[in-house]
Amino acid sequence: LGCCTTYLQCCDRPKNTNVRISLPAVCFVWQIAMIILFGIFIRYDQESDAHWIEYRKSQNISSDIENDFYFRYPSFQDVHVMIFVGFGFLMTFLKRYSFSAVGFNFLIAAFGLQWALLMQGWFQSLDPMDGKIKISMESLINADFCVASCLIAYGAVLGKLSPVQLMVMTLFGITLYAVEEFIILNLIHARDAGGSMVIHTFGAYYGLSISWMLYRPNLDQSKRLNGSVYHSDVFAMIGTLFLWMFWPSFNSAITDHGDGQHRAAINTYLALASTVLTTVAISSLSQKTGKLDMVHIQNSTLAGGVAVGTAAEFMLMPYGSLIIGFCCGIISTLGYIYITPFMEKYLKIQDTCGIHNLHAMPGVIGGIVGAITAAAASERVYGKEGLINTFDFTGEWKDMVPSRQGGHQAAGLCVALCFGVGGGIIVGCILRIPVWGDAPDDNCFDDELYWELPEEEESIPPILEDNNHMRNRDV
Amino acid sequence: LGCCTTYLQCCDRPKNTNVRISLPAVCFVWQIAMIILFGIFIRYDQESDAHWIEYRKSQNISSDIENDFYFRYPSFQDVHVMIFVGFGFLMTFLKRYSFSAVGFNFLIAAFGLQWALLMQGWFQSLDPMDGKIKISMESLINADFCVASCLIAYGAVLGKLSPVQLMVMTLFGITLYAVEEFIILNLIHARDAGGSMVIHTFGAYYGLSISWMLYRPNLDQSKRLNGSVYHSDVFAMIGTLFLWMFWPSFNSAITDHGDGQHRAAINTYLALASTVLTTVAISSLSQKTGKLDMVHIQNSTLAGGVAVGTAAEFMLMPYGSLIIGFCCGIISTLGYIYITPFMEKYLKIQDTCGIHNLHAMPGVIGGIVGAITAAAASERVYGKEGLINTFDFTGEWKDMVPSRQGGHQAAGLCVALCFGVGGGIIVGCILRIPVWGDAPDDNCFDDELYWELPEEEESIPPILEDNNHMRNRDV
Amino acid sequence: LGCCTTYLQCCDRPKNTNVRISLPAVCFVWQIAMIILFGIFIRYDQESDAHWIEYRKSQNISSDIENDFYFRYPSFQDVHVMIFVGFGFLMTFLKRYSFSAVGFNFLIAAFGLQWALLMQGWFQSLDPMDGKIKISMESLINADFCVASCLIAYGAVLGKLSPVQLMVMTLFGITLYAVEEFIILNLIHARDAGGSMVIHTFGAYYGLSISWMLYRPNLDQSKRLNGSVYHSDVFAMIGTLFLWMFWPSFNSAITDHGDGQHRAAINTYLALASTVLTTVAISSLSQKTGKLDMVHIQNSTLAGGVAVGTAAEFMLMPYGSLIIGFCCGIISTLGYIYITPFMEKYLKIQDTCGIHNLHAMPGVIGGIVGAITAAAASERVYGKEGLINTFDFTGEWKDMVPSRQGGHQAAGLCVALCFGVGGGIIVGCILRIPVWGDAPDDNCFDDELYWELPEEEESIPPILEDNNHMRNRDV
Repeated sequence: LGCCTTYLQCCDRPKNTNVRISLPAVCFVWQIAMIILFGIFIRYDQESDAHWIEYRKSQNISSDIENDFYFRYPSFQDVHVMIFVGFGFLMTFLKRYSFSAVGFNFLIAAFGLQWALLMQGWFQSLDPMDGKIKISMESLINADFCVASCLIAYGAVLGKLSPVQLMVMTLFGITLYAVEEFIILNLIHARDAGGSMVIHTFGAYYGLSISWMLYRPNLDQSKRLNGSVYHSDVFAMIGTLFLWMFWPSFNSAITDHGDGQHRAAINTYLALASTVLTTVAISSLSQKTGKLDMVHIQNSTLAGGVAVGTAAEFMLMPYGSLIIGFCCGIISTLGYIYITPFMEKYLKIQDTCGIHNLHAMPGVIGGIVGAITAAAASERVYGKEGLINTFDFTGEWKDMVPSRQGGHQAAGLCVALCFGVGGGIIVGCILRIPVWGDAPDDNCFDDELYWELPEEEESIPPILEDNNHMRNRDV
Repeated sequence: LGCCTTYLQCCDRPKNTNVRISLPAVCFVWQIAMIILFGIFIRYDQESDAHWIEYRKSQNISSDIENDFYFRYPSFQDVHVMIFVGFGFLMTFLKRYSFSAVGFNFLIAAFGLQWALLMQGWFQSLDPMDGKIKISMESLINADFCVASCLIAYGAVLGKLSPVQLMVMTLFGITLYAVEEFIILNLIHARDAGGSMVIHTFGAYYGLSISWMLYRPNLDQSKRLNGSVYHSDVFAMIGTLFLWMFWPSFNSAITDHGDGQHRAAINTYLALASTVLTTVAISSLSQKTGKLDMVHIQNSTLAGGVAVGTAAEFMLMPYGSLIIGFCCGIISTLGYIYITPFMEKYLKIQDTCGIHNLHAMPGVIGGIVGAITAAAASERVYGKEGLINTFDFTGEWKDMVPSRQGGHQAAGLCVALCFGVGGGIIVGCILRIPVWGDAPDDNCFDDELYWELPEEEESIPPILEDNNHMRNRDV
Repeated sequence: LGCCTTYLQCCDRPKNTNVRISLPAVCFVWQIAMIILFGIFIRYDQESDAHWIEYRKSQNISSDIENDFYFRYPSFQDVHVMIFVGFGFLMTFLKRYSFSAVGFNFLIAAFGLQWALLMQGWFQSLDPMDGKIKISMESLINADFCVASCLIAYGAVLGKLSPVQLMVMTLFGITLYAVEEFIILNLIHARDAGGSMVIHTFGAYYGLSISWMLYRPNLDQSKRLNGSVYHSDVFAMIGTLFLWMFWPSFNSAITDHGDGQHRAAINTYLALASTVLTTVAISSLSQKTGKLDMVHIQNSTLAGGVAVGTAAEFMLMPYGSLIIGFCCGIISTLGYIYITPFMEKYLKIQDTCGIHNLHAMPGVIGGIVGAITAAAASERVYGKEGLINTFDFTGEWKDMVPSRQGGHQAAGLCVALCFGVGGGIIVGCILRIPVWGDAPDDNCFDDELYWELPEEEESIPPILEDNNHMRNRDV
């Protein structure tokens, strides 16, 4: 009890946004730690090692084009764009927080992907022969996926945390992700190609729980900065569109070669198209004169991609994808209109980007759809080999049947939820200690605190007009 | 006659821009119709179906890498970027119409691609065995192509139509496209890899005819908004560059595997490079002091890609591509300087983005170049098998000769023109009825009508200045 | 001596920024020359020619997927984006030079790639049978690489040269590049996959020497325009991120099929991630309150990609890549803080974009790292065949050993330096003659000189507010 009181007293100490010691220290120490750990643990796998040519001949692989690089690289680059430009620019919508949106997104993603390579490597690809982690293109995609969950969480706390806090949030987020991913994919043997559960559900509840722990009752003192301007909304559309366009690559990046990647891309493409129409419909209905709201167009149009993630590689059928997109567009947009204000007022969860509507709800829907689709799978639809391939009913899981697979999928969803909420609460406690340099309540959503800003725009006029203005003022 | 009078009277009724009923209704009803039609008609083809592994073995295909997905996917994603970011941002140049440019482009493309999958499927890939349309990556690329023609048409009417009208325009545009494409490619057996005729000529004349039918004599009442500001021109350059860079993928996306895709990409790359130089030259010549005009740089630099579309897969030779680009840069830029004002004044065609210069003229040139190049094809240049491959002289067309192919190409161009002009006039008539919520003449080019806009930029100053302002006002 | 005096007198003549004759003349004449030279010299190679199908059968190539197009095309498109959007937008950071940054980048790249195809073709792929240059996807990538070196040089002189001067600079830059590349790669047989030496070192010293020759003592008269505004910094981040994300494609685009491309992409990905953290650390340390500087984030975060260029295809090991990135982030950021001001003050080199920190120093480091890594290569690490493959110890170089290869790498670096500095000085002399239309010292960094600019932003307010303003003014 005394401990708890001390903790709460400690949390009430005044805030200091100077991060000149803490930010460089965190960056340097962690990066050096990465170098040491990479030196000890990480090596190339046989497809990226110079011995590939010998390996290829020994395995009778007929051509270099069968190197996994050529199956995965285009999707990898699309995912990479989603992580850095997609998430980064999606969050530039605030009028004076674009530097932080893009810049901190950049920083935590660059750190996160290194830590993810290690964490995921330890859990999933440690070579028992030499104790090394062997990395390839698929590892890089998985690292980017892992980072995505932390960037989703960033959306909930956008404008309220310091870069040091974001680094801490990412460190723990990646760690938790690697554990829950191992449990869901390896122990429970759930399938989750596009990460509806593993990435979106976990990431969103992780971020929302942190935001709940860091509730700021006086946040409306920063209200003047918690909104967009015309051009910042156009910048945010860059993020939206790159996420929307490349989502088929996201959901198909690590699915099976051949039909798996092909089908996942088609399903995602269709689900996203359908979402756009229902988002527009609900957005227009919600205003007296049928005007559209940029917040909905920027965010809810993506909900279909989230929800189709788990089931994208299954035989969902094209109309199934459209139905998922249809429902998620409606639910997500209604979430922005009704649930976000409700959560802020009654649940004390301040969700800057509305990730509850874009990632949490669609993620849970995606998990449920995945469980149902898996349970309903049949040899008639998939073919005998197709069923084994798609659900990986091999090795110790060779006696698995679709109906039980459905149960495993549902169990996976629960694990993701628990890790998200539980992890978020613990990390939130840590982040409340006022040593991390976060902003006071009346100065949130402001680049001024952590960035050298250029002079004001007013001083740009070309020479001639400038002189005229001067003259007028002199008179 | 009476009917006609009633129609014209009807067209003079005052306009009401409230789309709160019509827009959601159109989105919901059409999306539900899509779901039903997809449920009845659309299935995966053998390369995206879970039976692929069995099919692969039965066909003796040695590796998953020969799934068409790996031949087409990188090009597909580039085309996808062109449709959503390319066309969307190209039209953000207006000072207060960026939300609509990007947002409505997004809406009509997302609807259009679903409808295109159905229409093109019915005409071209209906499986006679089970009456289903089987879709694969190539279908998605074709759907994106089909959508492109409607987005081109959007360029002509930018700022003057309501979102409901745009949806109607897209519905009919996609339908007409599927018919003319079937006639040109299947019945006439013209080749049109990059769609100079099928996409650009059709789309541009469709849009211009609609704009002609919807002529607004008092449009200069909105003159204050029909122009750019500094930052909106930079946004538009994002669109220009993504179109320019990915055009080689556009023209090569559905050409033959191997040399066909390779050659189409090279030809397009060269034609576009050449266009940039002549565009800059003419733009500089057109001003007294040699200054460049952003309108030309944003648009005319792309004309070479349009004009090389049909012939991109032929043995055009690298210098041939340069010549096409050279001419189109000149013609397109001169079009912006002389023809667009002429058309507005004398032909009563208001063409907001100047699609006549970017798509119509280069598209027609592309069709003609295609006809000439096809007619001049010889076994010496192509090789015996190369000629058959490139022009698909197989099946019922196995006795075709290049000279006759040239004639068929020319016939294809005429069909595209007729469908564009004819279809545009009919659809224009429909859109003139004042029930679709379009803007009055003095309020065109304004996001205000259909979007919730953020507060003005003036209210962003940082706290200190803000306080000063307050104080001043209090005094 | 008399000649020299005349030259210097000539250089003091007043400047005239009218380029209405010179710019169109340069564009037209050079483009026509390109068409003629392409007509004489350039043809498709066997993988893009219609005879491919016959060639494929004669070579027993089992599938179209083994056409080099499918190995290279995704990387090519990424490199293409880096050249046009990456370099273009990176330079939009100046408040009133965004049109020129993107537009002139576009112009000189479009010209440069044509000239590069010719120059590189003459030196490296002239077919001795028929005296023709045979081009394929790899040629286009190499042309884009060649152009990159001139765009790097553009960074040093940004805002100070006219478009005509930039064209001249590009003409000579491409020519010099082709010669030094031939010497380094073919005569010296150094390896340089990502071009640390060939592209970055050469390009940067070429630009810096030109800037030194064109030193403007009174440049501070344009100080008001030599800075950024809020939105121009966000635009520049588009450039930064596309460069950062696609750099793995840049460094792997022309490496060996299979493990070579795979490994180069992984190494670059890691080096870049590491750079971000040390850049943030040093940037934050350099300010009193730990604030970050956008200049560092926009530029120094890319230094790791430059420095890992030469060694990216070697067995650098993942931790090796991290170490390179770690060091370059520090050095590059310190360069912006200390070296750029020093160079301007004492060495009379005005480096607008700080390419000395982003390209010159990391490029030299990359060359040195490449030499060391090559010298340390062993059969144990690479395998016998891997060593031969990676370093291309075949043909006349089949007796080469790693330690001597290290010496050749170092020799390559020296050649790149000499060509950069020497070439830059000569071209700088040419560009000083005041016939090219460059800006006077008090009007640098201004789009006004070469672009028709849109009216000022103040005149955009929506109608209602506008009326209010009117009324106020009337009162």
